[in-house]
Amino acid sequence: MFDQFEQHAAVFQQVILDKQSEIEAWFRTKWQQHRPPFYGSVDLRNAGYKMSSIDMNLFPGGFNNINADFLAAAVLAAQDAVERACPTAKSILLIPENHTRNTFYLQNVYALSKILESAGFVVRIGSLNAEVTEATAFTTALCDELVLEPVVRTGNRLGLADGFNPCLVLLNNDLSGGVPEILQNIEQVMLPPIKGGWTTRRKTQHFAAYNQVADEFAAVIGIDAWDINPYFEQANGLNFHEREGEDQLADVVQRLLDKIQAKYDEKGITDTPFVIVKADAGTYGMGVMSVKSAEEVRKLNRKNRNKMAVIKEGLEVSEVIVQEGIYTYEKVGEAVSEPVVYMMDRFVIGGFYRVNEARGMDENLNATGMRFIPMDQEVPYQCEDADKRHFEQWQNVGVADHSLPATAERNRLYVYGVMARLSLLAAAIELE
Amino acid sequence: MFDQFEQHAAVFQQVILDKQSEIEAWFRTKWQQHRPPFYGSVDLRNAGYKMSSIDMNLFPGGFNNINADFLAAAVLAAQDAVERACPTAKSILLIPENHTRNTFYLQNVYALSKILESAGFVVRIGSLNAEVTEATAFTTALCDELVLEPVVRTGNRLGLADGFNPCLVLLNNDLSGGVPEILQNIEQVMLPPIKGGWTTRRKTQHFAAYNQVADEFAAVIGIDAWDINPYFEQANGLNFHEREGEDQLADVVQRLLDKIQAKYDEKGITDTPFVIVKADAGTYGMGVMSVKSAEEVRKLNRKNRNKMAVIKEGLEVSEVIVQEGIYTYEKVGEAVSEPVVYMMDRFVIGGFYRVNEARGMDENLNATGMRFIPMDQEVPYQCEDADKRHFEQWQNVGVADHSLPATAERNRLYVYGVMARLSLLAAAIELE
Repeated sequence: MFDQFEQHAAVFQQVILDKQSEIEAWFRTKWQQHRPPFYGSVDLRNAGYKMSSIDMNLFPGGFNNINADFLAAAVLAAQDAVERACPTAKSILLIPENHTRNTFYLQNVYALSKILESAGFVVRIGSLNAEVTEATAFTTALCDELVLEPVVRTGNRLGLADGFNPCLVLLNNDLSGGVPEILQNIEQVMLPPIKGGWTTRRKTQHFAAYNQVADEFAAVIGIDAWDINPYFEQANGLNFHEREGEDQLADVVQRLLDKIQAKYDEKGITDTPFVIVKADAGTYGMGVMSVKSAEEVRKLNRKNRNKMAVIKEGLEVSEVIVQEGIYTYEKVGEAVSEPVVYMMDRFVIGGFYRVNEARGMDENLNATGMRFIPMDQEVPYQCEDADKRHFEQWQNVGVADHSLPATAERNRLYVYGVMARLSLLAAAIELE
Repeated sequence: MFDQFEQHAAVFQQVILDKQSEIEAWFRTKWQQHRPPFYGSVDLRNAGYKMSSIDMNLFPGGFNNINADFLAAAVLAAQDAVERACPTAKSILLIPENHTRNTFYLQNVYALSKILESAGFVVRIGSLNAEVTEATAFTTALCDELVLEPVVRTGNRLGLADGFNPCLVLLNNDLSGGVPEILQNIEQVMLPPIKGGWTTRRKTQHFAAYNQVADEFAAVIGIDAWDINPYFEQANGLNFHEREGEDQLADVVQRLLDKIQAKYDEKGITDTPFVIVKADAGTYGMGVMSVKSAEEVRKLNRKNRNKMAVIKEGLEVSEVIVQEGIYTYEKVGEAVSEPVVYMMDRFVIGGFYRVNEARGMDENLNATGMRFIPMDQEVPYQCEDADKRHFEQWQNVGVADHSLPATAERNRLYVYGVMARLSLLAAAIELE
């Protein structure tokens, strides 16, 4: 199976490499028509015969997992990103998530602020957390110090108590809990825009935009769009606690499984079709299940119904995306992994493999048991000796090299970068 | 002396670091007013109490000396550079110098074409060399293969024999020998523009623009402009062979030496003033001399007059720039060195130290005996075992880190990047 994966992957990567200049020219044209998001991260799955984004995060939370050796590229990209938003910006107010006890998340905020500082901006962190009532120093997982200050609103502008009043407000808060009043009707440039938050954003809208992008891209390089695009449908009116909408959901699942099976038959693929059911407005790998038959949806036990019913910030799930599952044959050691690609403006700035030793290749990997496994070096551990996390960091940013085989690591990462940018482009269209 | 250098340098670097966000905001404003050159390299001298560009090359010839680990940053910068020139460009015709026997120069062309290819462009090399009558493969110093093809002009467009007809023509040929007819009145975008070549360009025009830039920058960060700007004057009507203009040149030298001495006295600097006399239109370190008194100019022996009289392509020197000399206290091992910074569009993409073991700290280092000495790794040698060159490559691209001391290597390189960009900005103004 893995030999076959490698063969399929090699063919696909060769196609992408051969078309590199057409692909890059196409992206350049697209970025003239569509404004790239400030930043984003994309989860990819790679089955060899099929490869695609399965999730696009407009508020990436893992900048600390990016290889610091490639900071220079991130710094260049950050300059383009900020200039596009606010050509005269000198300083940035960064608004993070409220969870101040997750030291890894704080490390992400620290890493992000370092990138922006290195790009020459004054960066200060404005917290929406009611517990942050004055400038307070927090210690991150790697023992760096991060000062959070309460956000202050003056008229329709956001700033800090001492009069800090920047041109650009950068959100690293996905607004899962709704849009706080303090963020509404702000006259400053706020990126990503409020409508990019999970209060209003829907995965199905993203993948509707992705359909267009994938179709056009597939035509440009002469492949079947299905090779880079998973089927999906929305199911709504659900209440997992009350088992409302279960039959409709089962019908959607069955329809998609049949569609996938038909395509597998056409392509001679012997894998068993599966779908992923995910909250349509959600993140953090919560409210996700992998399903191989309509029956499984009808037979959900209480525990699994509870798991699906409520996601981040205690939100009830009534709408889901049912998405064609893509097997991931990418492995790190013996563990199943999926690539995660980080971007700023229109550029790839790094990535890593998400590894889950407890999960199979047809499952969501963004879940308990997830670890980041090192490739040839480990990151320093957190200060206090709790659950030591690792990650498999990319050792290069995926600059293609035509003098190497298509299967070379850097060429594979280039291909991942292309796939991620397709999803980034879909996000740009989605936000219009 | 070196302790003092370190002290001075630390103070200066601290000033620059403290003002980083103002400096970067200022550069951003400037790049909105002035279009950055496609690329450039700058030679710097650092005396601790004074640091400046002493030369700005619009046709850089050492891309092979840049650390390939930072290719990702160069690739991003190249995308901005090409997009600015020609938003729809898919391919680039690169026109190098004619010297096909200098395998290191060919390596530079190879490295530059790799950067552009990695940025997603089709790159082909169009040679003006009459000896290149058909597509011919040359072997570079590191045994890569580079295909040169004769440039073909069709109407007012440049291309290749098979109909290759790109949007952008990129010159890596400094036109020291004049502007060949085939390059005149071309309708494609040609960068750098013809007027950036040494047929028309003058160092004194560059440093006149640099005067403006340095004055404004010095005001922004609150330093004396002299700290970053060497005095200069032009002397013309010279004929070194015939000893014409010798007295006028001696007068200029004396005037500048007096001016420098007055400034040294004001600042309490105990160094002996010197000036550099260089061909006003010239490059390759030819036609350069270091002078400490007007007498030296009057007493030039035949050998030295011959050296000054003729530069690249056999051009007679009749105009020189007499430029305040800046001692360089930068050392690599025991050898005197000067930093060289490479840029694309408005970004620093790498650099190295030029080292000359045979020269003193008041001399031109771009001369016979120059070597590139490795820091912690050597580049592969050339295929045939001739004069093994080394270079001291920068190990980072100079992303400033405020958590490190101002004297840390990466912070020093950041400062060099700022100084280099001042000269790049002057070049932008000079080309308008």
